[in-house]
This record gives sequence, structure tokens and C-alpha cells, in this order.
Amino acid sequence: MIIHHGYFRSSSSYRCRIALNLKAVEGYYRPIHLLKDGGQQNSEAYAALNPQRLVPAFELDDGRVLTQSPAILEWIEETYPNPPLLPSCAIDRARVRAFCAVISCDIHPLQNLRVLQFLTAQFGADQEAKNQWCQRWISDGLAAAEKLLKNRLSTRFAFGDAPGMAEVYLIPQMYSADRFGVDLTNVPRLCEVAQACGGVDAFRAAHPSVQADAE
Amino acid sequence: MIIHHGYFRSSSSYRCRIALNLKAVEGYYRPIHLLKDGGQQNSEAYAALNPQRLVPAFELDDGRVLTQSPAILEWIEETYPNPPLLPSCAIDRARVRAFCAVISCDIHPLQNLRVLQFLTAQFGADQEAKNQWCQRWISDGLAAAEKLLKNRLSTRFAFGDAPGMAEVYLIPQMYSADRFGVDLTNVPRLCEVAQACGGVDAFRAAHPSVQADAE
Repeated sequence: MIIHHGYFRSSSSYRCRIALNLKAVEGYYRPIHLLKDGGQQNSEAYAALNPQRLVPAFELDDGRVLTQSPAILEWIEETYPNPPLLPSCAIDRARVRAFCAVISCDIHPLQNLRVLQFLTAQFGADQEAKNQWCQRWISDGLAAAEKLLKNRLSTRFAFGDAPGMAEVYLIPQMYSADRFGVDLTNVPRLCEVAQACGGVDAFRAAHPSVQADAE
Repeated sequence: MIIHHGYFRSSSSYRCRIALNLKAVEGYYRPIHLLKDGGQQNSEAYAALNPQRLVPAFELDDGRVLTQSPAILEWIEETYPNPPLLPSCAIDRARVRAFCAVISCDIHPLQNLRVLQFLTAQFGADQEAKNQWCQRWISDGLAAAEKLLKNRLSTRFAFGDAPGMAEVYLIPQMYSADRFGVDLTNVPRLCEVAQACGGVDAFRAAHPSVQADAE
């Protein structure tokens, strides 16, 4: 069984939980608390597993370890092809992956815990300044993601009638947007998609609030 | 023919040039100057092509447009399978993609032009402070990438004897590291790989300094 070393509030870990649930693949979720004990990811045991000291890390049966959620998610898609999380045509896959990259490259890295900590260390940013920083990038990025869905047929989910990779990235980002108090009135389509996901068990069971390490 | 809307100095655009060259796919490179004329990516014509106003954008023969370099690169790999830029086994692919994600998610987004501009706007960061910011993330990220190559067999390139997706991401990042004056003494393996790429035409022809819009 896959051991998923994660943290309830980490977007990257949340993505992996959704993907495993959508594929109905059982994983054992082992919480790594990013703040307690000076950050449990900094323990020697965890650093041996993932020298980058980030979550998630997937430990496979044979002891091999996979890191970086974009790589893990492609591995999940390739290893457990059903149901598919990406469309069958290359151009359509590129469109979905572009949507995912807006979130994984243009938004998420900027609201990362270590980045916020460094904003304080280098520029003396207080909580309000850090919230403004996050709001700026989340708001810009979600507006860009919303535009990528413009002119699409009206489907229940972002790229079709079943949730897929787009929602795997989107839902954790919408959760983050909520935490940072981002105004979502200019992304109505993303809100609709998020609402549709709210009715799907795979998403509900992956929510941070129902994980073993939730606070 | 693919029209590659790019900028000589953009890492994402540089990645796409390398990948097209490695596949021997002809593309027409159309420069979009990110600073001139208030940023040519902000023109109406370009915004119509890519509403996110970022480079690269790939315009295909039928007018369809692809954006976001991680998505474009996977599309190139799928559409022009030879020579492959990713290994044939899923676990190995996940390893290479993790290496790429360290660069595309943990380093590159933080040294982005619009992020540096916002550091000045929000925190009054001067050039030195921005250089420090970039050095921190490039240095940390490259050290993580170096660790991912530890314990690997000694091959000419990062994951084998031919360059692939790892080098497509690495080389533009090493170029950036040089621009920001990052000390590379603790990443000797990455330096070796970069040196090996320096002998390959596909990389030489993709270098920013030999593009039509080079300064």
C-alpha cells in the first residue's frame, strides 16, 4: 500500500488525496506536521525520505519514494488509468495541464509557508502584508484560470462531465483562497465547478477538515 | 509550422526552444518583448492570443493556442515522440518530472519579473534586495535538484546518456542562476550536466544570446 506522507492543510498533499480517491486507490495517510516540533519535515527520518523536506512524499511498497505533487499526479494517472483524469487527445490534455500549471506554477509557490516566512525575515512582512501578498497572487491566478474556461461548452466540471486533473488542482486552491480571504466574485465559473466537486465523495473525503491531523 | 511567441530571456520560452530543437521540430520564433512598449505582452493582439499575457504561447497551424510551458513541453513530448525526453518506465518518469518540478514550481515562479516588480511595489525592495530574494530561492532549489541526482549512476546527462526533460528545465535555470550571481560550488553535478549540454547543438541554438531579440 502507498504511504502518503502529507499534511492536512498542504495544497499539494490535498491534490494527491483527491487523485487517489478519484482512482479508488487505497493509500495510508501519514501526517507530517509542518509547524509542530520545529516542523516534523525537518526530522532526520523524514529528511532521509525526502531530502527536500517538503510534503507530499509517496513511499511505495518496495521502499521507493516519489516527491513533488505534479510528478506524483502524473504517476498516479499513468499507473492507475481508470477513471482517466486527463482527456484522450493531446491538445485537450495540454489545455487541462495549462489550467493546472496556472495553479501549480503561478499561484501555489507564492503562498508557500517557507516563502511567507522569508517575506517576514527579509522584509519584515506582518500577517496583514502576507495576506495581501497571497491575495494578489491567488486572485490574479484564479482570474487567469477562469479565462481558460471561457468559451467552453457548459459542462458540469471544468473540462467535461466528470472531475479530472483540473479539479484535483483547483479545489485545494479554492480552499486556500478561502483561508486567505480572497474575493471570488470575479471567478463565477470556478465557483460553480467547486460547488459541483462539493457533491463528490472523493473530494469530500480529501478535505483537510476530515484528515487525521486536522486541527 | 508552430509559431512560438517568446522572449529571449524567459526561462519558459528557453525551455520550449530546447525541446523543439531536441526533437528537430521547426518552429517560427516570434519575439514578444516583456519590457519594451510597456510590455508587448500587454498589447491587445497578444492578450487575445494569451489572456494571461505571459510567454510562451504556441500558435498552431489551425489557430489553436497552447500556453504554460509545462503543458507545452508534455504536448511536444506526446506529439513528437522521437527522441523521447522522458524515460519509458512510469517510476523513472516520475523521478525526472520531480526534478523538473523543483525548477518549475520551487524556483522559477519566485524569480519571475512580475513577482520582482511586486516586491518593489509592496515592500520597496531595491535591486540588491531582489537579487538576494532570487539567490535564496535559486540556491535552495538547485541544492534540492542536486540531491535528486545523488546516488545515481554516473551518466553523461542527469538521468542517462542523452539529454531529456531534466536538461530542458535545468539549463535555462542555470542561465538564470548566472544572471543573479548565484554561487554554484555546492551543485557540482548540475554544473557537469550543464557543461555536457553546452556541447550539444540543440542547447546552443536555444541560448538567449543567439535569439533574434537578444540584447
